[in-house]
Amino acid sequence: MLPPTIDAIRAADVRIRPYALRTPLIESPRLNDRLGGRVFLKLETLQRVGAFKFRGAYNKISQIDKARHPGGVVASSSGNHAQGVADASALMGLPAIIVMPSDAPPLKIARTKALGAEVVLYDRAREDRDAIAERLRAERGAVMVHPFDDPDIIAGQGTAGLEIAEQLAAAGATPDFLIAPCSGGGLLSGLAIAIHSGFPDCQVISAEPEEFDDMARSLVSGKREKNARKSGSICDALMSEMPGNITFEACTNENVRGVAVSEAEVRAAVRYAFEELKLVVEPGGAVAFAAMLAGKVPVAGRTAVVVLSGGNIDPKLFTEILAGRPS
Amino acid sequence: MLPPTIDAIRAADVRIRPYALRTPLIESPRLNDRLGGRVFLKLETLQRVGAFKFRGAYNKISQIDKARHPGGVVASSSGNHAQGVADASALMGLPAIIVMPSDAPPLKIARTKALGAEVVLYDRAREDRDAIAERLRAERGAVMVHPFDDPDIIAGQGTAGLEIAEQLAAAGATPDFLIAPCSGGGLLSGLAIAIHSGFPDCQVISAEPEEFDDMARSLVSGKREKNARKSGSICDALMSEMPGNITFEACTNENVRGVAVSEAEVRAAVRYAFEELKLVVEPGGAVAFAAMLAGKVPVAGRTAVVVLSGGNIDPKLFTEILAGRPS
Repeated sequence: MLPPTIDAIRAADVRIRPYALRTPLIESPRLNDRLGGRVFLKLETLQRVGAFKFRGAYNKISQIDKARHPGGVVASSSGNHAQGVADASALMGLPAIIVMPSDAPPLKIARTKALGAEVVLYDRAREDRDAIAERLRAERGAVMVHPFDDPDIIAGQGTAGLEIAEQLAAAGATPDFLIAPCSGGGLLSGLAIAIHSGFPDCQVISAEPEEFDDMARSLVSGKREKNARKSGSICDALMSEMPGNITFEACTNENVRGVAVSEAEVRAAVRYAFEELKLVVEPGGAVAFAAMLAGKVPVAGRTAVVVLSGGNIDPKLFTEILAGRPS
Repeated sequence: MLPPTIDAIRAADVRIRPYALRTPLIESPRLNDRLGGRVFLKLETLQRVGAFKFRGAYNKISQIDKARHPGGVVASSSGNHAQGVADASALMGLPAIIVMPSDAPPLKIARTKALGAEVVLYDRAREDRDAIAERLRAERGAVMVHPFDDPDIIAGQGTAGLEIAEQLAAAGATPDFLIAPCSGGGLLSGLAIAIHSGFPDCQVISAEPEEFDDMARSLVSGKREKNARKSGSICDALMSEMPGNITFEACTNENVRGVAVSEAEVRAAVRYAFEELKLVVEPGGAVAFAAMLAGKVPVAGRTAVVVLSGGNIDPKLFTEILAGRPS
């Protein structure tokens, strides 16, 4: 399958608009002073379910024929896609089963259940997530909702990029850079296609945790690379093993490049967001901001957009990060 | 002196616009579902210095004749007005001396100094803040910047109300209620005058901590009432002893009424803002939201605006509130 077109993203925007929030794009004078450039922050932390994932999930699930699929949907997710799928399914009156790793953050498991989904836990080390999900899908006659490698999911995430383009135009700003967190690449792909429709010269940058920078390495090598590690990042939302087929093609087409950040840089970004921005950002949602703060985007004298993509963090981990303690 | 007119607030808006942020007005579907109404949140936590106070301070300080007052400004504040004055003075190239209680939150003292102000601490129990400030003002030939009882301060804070009115109009919404935190009443007065220019039937509500509800009691009795207690609220930003002359007149004219919230209700609101909204709100900035969550505003089937007025909270207190522990 091919990446979505800008028209598909526009159609997704019409579909999700009654339910998705148009999230703010803000500036911080102190942040601008610190970086010597103009930085806009897209607050997807304020989106439904506390992350951008509702956009893609609703775009996909709202197109399901309920008569053909009374069993609803099945999805695999470590937490934010889970909540997006659960929320979108509830709005559509469809059942949702979510296959989640047993080491997913307790907060994310609890929130997914609270949104009405059935959660099936599996052991990341011993069990095959995809086999479990496929068995459930077949048993129930349900539709599989992939977290990223699906044109409808990518188109939904891309609606955040349409909003950014409109909000920048209203502010009279032209972005030199757009940087966002990347796991499988659904958000990045959608953002890149959308922003380039309005700002073709904007350099789109994928931010990943060190050792989980499969997208960055794939974009350099020209083929999809895998991560050696499968778990253990503080960025629980960003542990996909490799880019998707469609997302890798989209990011290649859009000339995306990648950067990686250390865990210490992520923690510093979560702290800065609390102290200076008064925003709650989860580690995986803060990697792009971390790259910006760490000087990995040459923003001095330029204009950049940073996506804060999620804010679902357990209070215990948040407390440890604020205190500067290891978790 | 008289309260500012709507034209004075519009003039303030022109004055502050190059520097103040137009803060987002957001909705949360989960919050709306919980309360059974439509609730807009005005995020003054995202304003410069992390609180609305920059608006009034800049409106006042930008009008000072630097040639006549090379000594700059003097202000008394427990923390947020301090930062607003320090930031506005720095922008204007004027020195600022801030008289702060020695038990002010360390974060607020540190941030005020970081903005370039000279901080003079006093002992709340033994020393006369106003005498100290007046001595400094006279010595330096400086201008006193009152935290609330000044038409220019009130007009500046009122610019938040102009933004709310515009943002509501863009959303096609008509507010039944506007509720905001109240200490001396500067924000409340400005908001009430501004919102009534666009929505004359909107009931404006002052929210205060229990035992510090001088405005609520004054509005009932028809004369300015004092609080018996002078310290000890978790809402460090809301401990003014009594309403100002001008703010009391403005709130009376605008038919404001008052509600009070308990410390437990404030803590629950700070926690909810973290968990569900992904926002950092300080206790004093959360009292209006606390009143809303506690059912003290009859929002079911109606539309309300809640101002989250500040987010400057020490990480230690924030951590204790998230954990549900007493401080």
